[in-house]
Amino acid sequence: MATFNTKTTFMTHSRSNPSRSSSRYLPRLVAMAQSQSYWASIESDIETYLKKAIPIRSPESVFEPMHHLTFAAPRTTAPALCVAACELVGGNRIQAMAAACAIHLMHAAAYTHEHLPLTDRPRPKPTIQHKFDPNIELLTGDGIIPFGLELLARSMDLAQSNPDKILRVIIEITRASGSQGIVEGQYRELGVDELSSDIKIIEYVSNKKEGELHACGAACGAILGGGAEEEIERLRNFGLYVGTVQGIVAKNKPGMEEKIEKLKGLALKELESFKGDKSELISRLVEPSLCAA
Amino acid sequence: MATFNTKTTFMTHSRSNPSRSSSRYLPRLVAMAQSQSYWASIESDIETYLKKAIPIRSPESVFEPMHHLTFAAPRTTAPALCVAACELVGGNRIQAMAAACAIHLMHAAAYTHEHLPLTDRPRPKPTIQHKFDPNIELLTGDGIIPFGLELLARSMDLAQSNPDKILRVIIEITRASGSQGIVEGQYRELGVDELSSDIKIIEYVSNKKEGELHACGAACGAILGGGAEEEIERLRNFGLYVGTVQGIVAKNKPGMEEKIEKLKGLALKELESFKGDKSELISRLVEPSLCAA
Repeated sequence: MATFNTKTTFMTHSRSNPSRSSSRYLPRLVAMAQSQSYWASIESDIETYLKKAIPIRSPESVFEPMHHLTFAAPRTTAPALCVAACELVGGNRIQAMAAACAIHLMHAAAYTHEHLPLTDRPRPKPTIQHKFDPNIELLTGDGIIPFGLELLARSMDLAQSNPDKILRVIIEITRASGSQGIVEGQYRELGVDELSSDIKIIEYVSNKKEGELHACGAACGAILGGGAEEEIERLRNFGLYVGTVQGIVAKNKPGMEEKIEKLKGLALKELESFKGDKSELISRLVEPSLCAA
Repeated sequence: MATFNTKTTFMTHSRSNPSRSSSRYLPRLVAMAQSQSYWASIESDIETYLKKAIPIRSPESVFEPMHHLTFAAPRTTAPALCVAACELVGGNRIQAMAAACAIHLMHAAAYTHEHLPLTDRPRPKPTIQHKFDPNIELLTGDGIIPFGLELLARSMDLAQSNPDKILRVIIEITRASGSQGIVEGQYRELGVDELSSDIKIIEYVSNKKEGELHACGAACGAILGGGAEEEIERLRNFGLYVGTVQGIVAKNKPGMEEKIEKLKGLALKELESFKGDKSELISRLVEPSLCAA
């Protein structure tokens, strides 16, 4: 999945316009620096929260792999979008923190299981370094899913939220990480050769995996931040388009440029009714260059 | 894990006392028949609820294996104990039904993943028939966990319950099925040869797997049925002892008879403060012959 790589992005943009006057691009550079700093601060807060939530404690045989696999999974922008959506609708960052972490944990469990060496699995995924043997990775993934949801269920005081909102967010996250989201996307990937795969399959899988996870992130943030129903749905759609774009871009398949541009346009349209700096900052997620593969 | 097998139990008990007068044992036979009928009615209601919750629907590639693996997993008595505990504290059966199903689903996911053929897994478990290939079984297990929790999070109206109770039950179930319950028990089993394994390991694993699942079942039922805190804790302890006994009995390891009797005694002690027929019915779970392996 796509990861934040703001430094590279920044440099790429500067270098891609060598002949232009730097003064002309100063406002854009300033805006980009603000955007980087905003997303970096969210990422840093999520990491701090996660590290506190998963200390390496007894039994170490359980918590050491859980800690390792949680942080070994590549970051996606879905948890950060959860926090940003919460702030966009007027909530406090802390209200979305447990949900953002739960979303990362669902992704980390899925990523771990996706790379498990099963006896008769075709290997569509690039092999990764395994610090633990398959049994441990299987069990750790199985432990991470309930752990993430427990973290969320326990977050009521922290989120200054009512239990109805937390239950609603649990439903969002279980849907997105289960058979109507990531798991359904993974089913469709089974036995599909990535290089030769059909454009429609790539779009479908990106929609179910990165798309649903980002839709869920945005919706959860908006719910927890006290957004109106219309705001929640607009942000959910924004997340779906943005996540789908990221999934497609990561596959790097020629011939999908038009689809990507269309989805980016749809995403930005969903943000039109939101005003202010935070709306501008969130809109940056449609730039694949901000979320380098 | 142990399963309900009331018919066999009934016959075994009748045959074991061939020389005694049948009239002397009539009250006992009547009590056993009542007990069988009570547990059978709970089992039947859980099955009906689960079948409605997991219809074979689109996408069939996802829901057919989910349906199959949910019902292929051997039953445990933990979901039925959840319902019985709810009724014991004065609740209605329907209030505990989603939690009971979620508990079965957590067990079914764990059972499915326990029998996955991984590339370098030692095989402590008896091999089972696999209807689907390992990729599908892995993904289906991954889908069942969030599905079970979603079912529970959505059950508020049905349970005539407040969202605080549902959140509390979600925490109970995520704990019991995660790294402090089943997953921790599975970790300890890794690489352990069942036949030669130490008595202490058998007890530890039974406590973490069957024990925690039954403790969770009993506590969830009592919470949802509106039990007082003391009732919840007594039923939780009862479940822990009863589940641990079942786990130990299923291993069929000589030299554990004294431990089993001690745990049964502790279990029955937890029920002393409950009065009435339902308390008698629940106490039947300590009889391993009622829950034949």
